[in-house]
Amino acid sequence: MGWEGPILTDSGGYQVMSLSELTKVSEEGVSFASHLDGSRHMLSPERSVEVQRLLDSDIIMQFDQLVPTTSKREQQVEAMERSIRWARRSRVEFDRGDAHAERAAIFGIQQGALDEGLRRASADALIDIGFDGYAVGGLAVGEGQQAMLGCLDFAVDMLPSERPRYLMGVGKPDDIVEAVMRGIDMFDCVLPTRSGRTGQAFTADGPLNIRNARHAEDPEPIEPGCLCPACNSFSRAYIHHLVKAGEILGAMLMTQHNLWFYQGMMQDLRQAISEQRLQAFAIEFLQRYRRRD
Amino acid sequence: MGWEGPILTDSGGYQVMSLSELTKVSEEGVSFASHLDGSRHMLSPERSVEVQRLLDSDIIMQFDQLVPTTSKREQQVEAMERSIRWARRSRVEFDRGDAHAERAAIFGIQQGALDEGLRRASADALIDIGFDGYAVGGLAVGEGQQAMLGCLDFAVDMLPSERPRYLMGVGKPDDIVEAVMRGIDMFDCVLPTRSGRTGQAFTADGPLNIRNARHAEDPEPIEPGCLCPACNSFSRAYIHHLVKAGEILGAMLMTQHNLWFYQGMMQDLRQAISEQRLQAFAIEFLQRYRRRD
Repeated sequence: MGWEGPILTDSGGYQVMSLSELTKVSEEGVSFASHLDGSRHMLSPERSVEVQRLLDSDIIMQFDQLVPTTSKREQQVEAMERSIRWARRSRVEFDRGDAHAERAAIFGIQQGALDEGLRRASADALIDIGFDGYAVGGLAVGEGQQAMLGCLDFAVDMLPSERPRYLMGVGKPDDIVEAVMRGIDMFDCVLPTRSGRTGQAFTADGPLNIRNARHAEDPEPIEPGCLCPACNSFSRAYIHHLVKAGEILGAMLMTQHNLWFYQGMMQDLRQAISEQRLQAFAIEFLQRYRRRD
Repeated sequence: MGWEGPILTDSGGYQVMSLSELTKVSEEGVSFASHLDGSRHMLSPERSVEVQRLLDSDIIMQFDQLVPTTSKREQQVEAMERSIRWARRSRVEFDRGDAHAERAAIFGIQQGALDEGLRRASADALIDIGFDGYAVGGLAVGEGQQAMLGCLDFAVDMLPSERPRYLMGVGKPDDIVEAVMRGIDMFDCVLPTRSGRTGQAFTADGPLNIRNARHAEDPEPIEPGCLCPACNSFSRAYIHHLVKAGEILGAMLMTQHNLWFYQGMMQDLRQAISEQRLQAFAIEFLQRYRRRD
């Protein structure tokens, strides 16, 4: 891969939901058709962990089952309980990895949609199995920011604070700051890269749509004061032109800026935590970030 | 631009031909509609040189007029003669650039389609005006390799060998080697980058189509033995997957390899010339490169 840093791999559980018209779920696992060539595959907890091990992943996620937060309660219960059984099977398969299990970590994933009782049952069962870290799963799937934060208000504290707590698939900069205030340590999200490719830049003053006509002759960098390679050398006007013309360099520069912004934000959050001023930092960040709205 | 190296800029003459349904040519210059937004612009020799100067280009190309090699002789004569008048106006405008004219260079462009007499008249007139370098223009526009090399057989020697001689818009690796044997020193071409984006890799054994199904499980690098970043870290199978799935990284790796290959080929050509073994190098290169055909 040409990547020397640590690797975290997801199990495929999210894809089972997001590509659900191609899948068939049973207790054994999930049978699905490739969206690339239509070929059929079977993904079980054991196979998912095996694939992640073959990728020599440093953090392996258990195989889980997600359902939309709008699904019926019985489906939410069923998916949460199945995810616990699959968590146990994932853990067993992970431990069979010997040398890999020695150097890598496996995380359990809390499910239970937006329901406090289900989240509690899921957390307790995962803690009983025992994992190196714990994820909050099944959020950021369209329920909206308010519903998500409302769930985090109780869900995070159910997981051990001495282990990494990871909010999967999040998110927008303000989502991240809000989640960190609720105890989350880790995130993954396509947003900085995918938004970069489609023309949205993130800045401390909120998102900026580089395709907007008002940037056609704008000599400023994406974010004045930013030290990223894109802001160091290129104007909004030039990047606007690149993005509108479909030049790959436009996607690359936007992505570079967004990754730089996210990295800086996470550094700031870590520093604010270590200096015990997270609350003050978050209020200031969110006020400035949301001022445009 | 974020580029510290030298810059060569073309004058727009080629686009006047390739986008000819949008253009209107007069003695003054060319009026055209932008293919991006339809806005109308006027490009004259003076304006073309001015724009190139504003870009702080190191090598400025005269504004010229190309016609297809299949066009009528009278059109070829007319375009060649107009290109000479535009060469003189380009030179005058360039010299008005004072400090820029001191540090930059301007090249004249020989026209005359495939006709020896027209090429001679064009070369003589350009030499009479006097340029820092001389380009062979109006080739690589669909006439085929044999016709192009046939023209180079006489066209290059008409230009001063003590100045850079530059074949515009060329080309494939074997085109380049053949042209160097005929006295060409410089090239420009989109082929290594554009082919990279569309899935064609260049190797010493000829071009390779990475999209071909036989590379789906191929563990070899694009070109075994190649030291480029792509060949150092990635298999054909992985790049095949990236290119088929439309991942930007696929285009980037293919482009990196192709640029590396072209740079290496040009280094090899320079070294062969300095060691007075160009003929032997070229025969060996072409035999190996064309073996697959």
